[in-house]
Amino acid sequence: MPQIIFNPGNRTIEIAEGTPLLEAAEQLGLSIEAPCGGRGVCGKCLVRITSGKADFQNDGMLPPELEAEGFVLICRTKAGREPLSVEVLSQLELEQGQFAEASSDLHLINRDLLPHEPDLEPDVNMTTVTLQQPAAGDGLSDLDRLEKAATSATGAQRIELPLGLLRTLPEKVRQDGGQVVLTHFNEYGTAHIIDIEAPGQQGSFGIAVDIGTTTVAVQLHDMKSGHILASKTDYNAQVACGMDVISRINYAKKQHRREELRHKVLESINGIVKELAASHGIKHAAIRNASLSGNTTMVHLLLGIDPEYIRLEPYTPAVYSVPYFKAGELGLDIHPGTRVRIAPSVGSYVGGDITSGLLCTSLATASEEICLFIDIGTNGELVLGNSEFLIGCACSAGPAFEGGGIEMGMRASTGAIECADVDRDTGKAHYVTIGAVPPVGICGSGMISLTANLFASGWLDAAGRLDRSRESTSIDTAGKTAKYIIAPAEHSGNGRPVYVSETDLDNLIRAKAAIFSACCVMLRNVGMGFEDLSKVYIAGGFGRYLDIDHAVTIGLLPDLPNGKFAYIGNASLMGAAMTLMSKRHRDKQDELAKRITYIDLSTEPGYMDQYTAALFLPHTDAQLFPHSGERVSRSCR
Amino acid sequence: MPQIIFNPGNRTIEIAEGTPLLEAAEQLGLSIEAPCGGRGVCGKCLVRITSGKADFQNDGMLPPELEAEGFVLICRTKAGREPLSVEVLSQLELEQGQFAEASSDLHLINRDLLPHEPDLEPDVNMTTVTLQQPAAGDGLSDLDRLEKAATSATGAQRIELPLGLLRTLPEKVRQDGGQVVLTHFNEYGTAHIIDIEAPGQQGSFGIAVDIGTTTVAVQLHDMKSGHILASKTDYNAQVACGMDVISRINYAKKQHRREELRHKVLESINGIVKELAASHGIKHAAIRNASLSGNTTMVHLLLGIDPEYIRLEPYTPAVYSVPYFKAGELGLDIHPGTRVRIAPSVGSYVGGDITSGLLCTSLATASEEICLFIDIGTNGELVLGNSEFLIGCACSAGPAFEGGGIEMGMRASTGAIECADVDRDTGKAHYVTIGAVPPVGICGSGMISLTANLFASGWLDAAGRLDRSRESTSIDTAGKTAKYIIAPAEHSGNGRPVYVSETDLDNLIRAKAAIFSACCVMLRNVGMGFEDLSKVYIAGGFGRYLDIDHAVTIGLLPDLPNGKFAYIGNASLMGAAMTLMSKRHRDKQDELAKRITYIDLSTEPGYMDQYTAALFLPHTDAQLFPHSGERVSRSCR
Repeated sequence: MPQIIFNPGNRTIEIAEGTPLLEAAEQLGLSIEAPCGGRGVCGKCLVRITSGKADFQNDGMLPPELEAEGFVLICRTKAGREPLSVEVLSQLELEQGQFAEASSDLHLINRDLLPHEPDLEPDVNMTTVTLQQPAAGDGLSDLDRLEKAATSATGAQRIELPLGLLRTLPEKVRQDGGQVVLTHFNEYGTAHIIDIEAPGQQGSFGIAVDIGTTTVAVQLHDMKSGHILASKTDYNAQVACGMDVISRINYAKKQHRREELRHKVLESINGIVKELAASHGIKHAAIRNASLSGNTTMVHLLLGIDPEYIRLEPYTPAVYSVPYFKAGELGLDIHPGTRVRIAPSVGSYVGGDITSGLLCTSLATASEEICLFIDIGTNGELVLGNSEFLIGCACSAGPAFEGGGIEMGMRASTGAIECADVDRDTGKAHYVTIGAVPPVGICGSGMISLTANLFASGWLDAAGRLDRSRESTSIDTAGKTAKYIIAPAEHSGNGRPVYVSETDLDNLIRAKAAIFSACCVMLRNVGMGFEDLSKVYIAGGFGRYLDIDHAVTIGLLPDLPNGKFAYIGNASLMGAAMTLMSKRHRDKQDELAKRITYIDLSTEPGYMDQYTAALFLPHTDAQLFPHSGERVSRSCR
Repeated sequence: MPQIIFNPGNRTIEIAEGTPLLEAAEQLGLSIEAPCGGRGVCGKCLVRITSGKADFQNDGMLPPELEAEGFVLICRTKAGREPLSVEVLSQLELEQGQFAEASSDLHLINRDLLPHEPDLEPDVNMTTVTLQQPAAGDGLSDLDRLEKAATSATGAQRIELPLGLLRTLPEKVRQDGGQVVLTHFNEYGTAHIIDIEAPGQQGSFGIAVDIGTTTVAVQLHDMKSGHILASKTDYNAQVACGMDVISRINYAKKQHRREELRHKVLESINGIVKELAASHGIKHAAIRNASLSGNTTMVHLLLGIDPEYIRLEPYTPAVYSVPYFKAGELGLDIHPGTRVRIAPSVGSYVGGDITSGLLCTSLATASEEICLFIDIGTNGELVLGNSEFLIGCACSAGPAFEGGGIEMGMRASTGAIECADVDRDTGKAHYVTIGAVPPVGICGSGMISLTANLFASGWLDAAGRLDRSRESTSIDTAGKTAKYIIAPAEHSGNGRPVYVSETDLDNLIRAKAAIFSACCVMLRNVGMGFEDLSKVYIAGGFGRYLDIDHAVTIGLLPDLPNGKFAYIGNASLMGAAMTLMSKRHRDKQDELAKRITYIDLSTEPGYMDQYTAALFLPHTDAQLFPHSGERVSRSCR
């Protein structure tokens, strides 16, 4: 009978060939939720086969990318002849749907853009070397022998060894016949030695981190296989100090508050890293690579630098291309000596999140087709161009797309309404929540979907006012501003009704207007129109999806054929993951950062007029949205 | 009337031209001791004129080197027409005679060997640059502008900026029109930025440090003028953990004891640095250069490295050529970010003190004359050669030459007997103490002088036994071993007699035998004899002088004409000072370290025989000392 090992926990059982693995797990008392009962529909029982071959009936239930990485739905998997190692994903992640979220982002990106085997070269590498044993008259100190072995093995001209490691060197040299594993970071001909360890089971893991103004997302990677092991998103604890970058910059004026902000974002990142590492039984010191991307202000705050000059004329940040600092110096809870890559910024408001995001688009290729990249977050950032030119700009959208600044807004996590239809006659909402549980709030994609459907069904006018002329139990006109009740108290997850107010709708309209008018100004700047665009890439933390039709209906996105749009999810995180793994992608990112011409919208003539014109649904100029009416409101999936 | 300013303290007085400065100081209530009453003999009233011209009557009372540096004897100085700034040296230093000691070492060295103006290039430099002010559309971050200015000013290809300085950069860039003073350390094309300061009165000071097994000596330098400002020697606090390197290595076996030893030597160095800096009103952060030399074990202990393998076959130290570490990392109380030079070692027992010492000899020149360098300390180290070959070896002399392992031995400081004659008839001693105060102990040069005179006067035999056959109040045969009373209790400084025992004399004989036999083996190794030597350089902390005749009389040094000997004092400290100031001397030292062939005496056949033969006064082979008898015992000066 094959032996099945479940991890974490190393729980072992022997069962007959053909036994469902879910049964084996139950016999061991492991709680793996499989709510759909083996139909392979809910995706909740995702596990990973780390060794051995299981009998998994996919039938198209799981994306091939995941299956290639060893993921299976345990409810559709049976024991084969061989012993198996099964990795159970942490229940917490599953509950919040985080693993699925991040994994699915991967398949949103054109495979040709992802790192391939020849590109795989992290910043920090592990190399096994054998140190020549001390011999009388060889004239070499322990350090000399290390330098000899390390330069020859790593191709560096010299080494740099921290004092702490020099102290351990005499013992290391004389153990295991001088065989040691060096963790090193090579730069400008110097191999900076980060660790010297006995040969053995050292793991090599890495983290890709997206530091958003509102949320922080971390992916844990196995650097040997290149696989994503786990991923999680959480709020950036800095939100307590201001909802957008400008309020953070204001908050950061005093030194002790800068320290507070620095600690808060570290708390968020380190909190997730701790969870992810624990779920895989990984020690923090085994995490030897890190690639971070964030906007310019987030990077300054992480580094503890006063971001004041980002928002003061002439808008000069302290740093665009961030040097490699030690993780310990930055305050990241990974191997303290390892070096951290931080994605380069382009301007005060076009940051490393954008240069990371661009790696997920054809703007990172030799293509001559004109493309537009839009990263929709608390700030909206746009890059337009092709292999010959690149211009970038930013606008302040506010946190509405991330569920912020909306009374009942929330991040795209369990209980968030992510899609909402509106009945043309009764005005009642039909909605879908993440995790299929009673709703407790609404996320960005839910807001876009609801606004589009309210507008299309006639319950919301072009100026963002709810229709008070018709009777509907869904519209509450009691307060100063009218409210639209999506879910009454009795259907909600916490006994309180879930609604949006006209103020919320106004915030959303302002947000979409900021982004759309930025698109217009950018195109006008190069004498082009929307018809010249071959592709529009949309990035952002919208949870599982962004409905293009809904986005066009409200005038957030231009009225182009659906085939020209590509939603690429959290591209900042995916770009960070690419640069974590691949030198080619790091080089490409550095090149992109240098190539982008930054346009400051605040000094751009006509931007305010464009913005004002866009403060309607979909726009004051109906000719810009000729097919808007044909985009029939679709039922929520 | 000219204004006279006394520092430290900025005490100011106006006096008539021609007024003795001592009178001005007295009017201000400053206590400057001038015990010889203006005869210019005692040297106690040394001060320094830092600006203006005083009327100083030298008449050969002060070495010209000191006078050139502005030093005067205040008792022989009058106010001139101009205002004067007078620097009063700290009373503590004067009392201990330390300033005189270190200054006088300088004149022991051939001037051609000292750094000249074109060589003056410290490791860490200060460069004033003007940072381009931020301008719209220049596409440069603050860091980019710093890099641009710094690389162009320092000739480096790139810069490395610590995170702490990056945090201060935005403010610095925008002050004083962007003019900043960079403190930087250039290595392998990178300018490592150590500090960024507003232009102003930043001083630039440096320390040269000799870390001996028994004593630690520090010189404080003004890096702008190259002048020695002050100097002080103290015990190495590690002596509490063992008198010689072997006992230190044994003590260091446990990690917490290595930490203890590391802290002890730092305590000694930092204690002196604190005193020297305070005496000149210098902040620790203004000390931006440091050059240290010490033997291999001392360097390992300073770095906190287990020195165990230094004494175990095949005698392989962890490090010969020590990388530049940050002062803060090492624990030195100077500018924490500055880089510290540590002199390179050659072998387990031929360390950086020797490669520093060699810089004070013609072995550091293109001369083809065969020379022998002997550093006499707790360990005796020898280097033989010329511009074509260099061989080095070490022997354990024990601490006798530094006043250690001798019952009433002490360091060469106030109250130490440094020279002693013996009356041929009565056996009574006539002695000289440092500071001309009643004696409290005897230092190394005192021991050599006393032993030579006891032997020459017949009161000590060739085997080191005192003559018990004749009556003398100076010989006390009461105990197990006989004692020679140098000063009875009533003449001593602490009411106790100062004496040496036969055990002390035996220790001294073993010490001189170790060194002399090492000389013999070295010469034999290259098929040479003493007659082939053009010069014998003797280094060591013997206080003010070493009497060559006395040293030959006891058989410590070979019987060569006096003109062939050169006593060069604490050459390790002086070499450290040269490498502190000059790149040419650092390069030369690195080259010397690579060129020296290390001979391990413990595996050298015949060394033990040679040693045993040398355990007599002057030697069992009288032919080796043909002129020994002619070296008449001279009166103590």
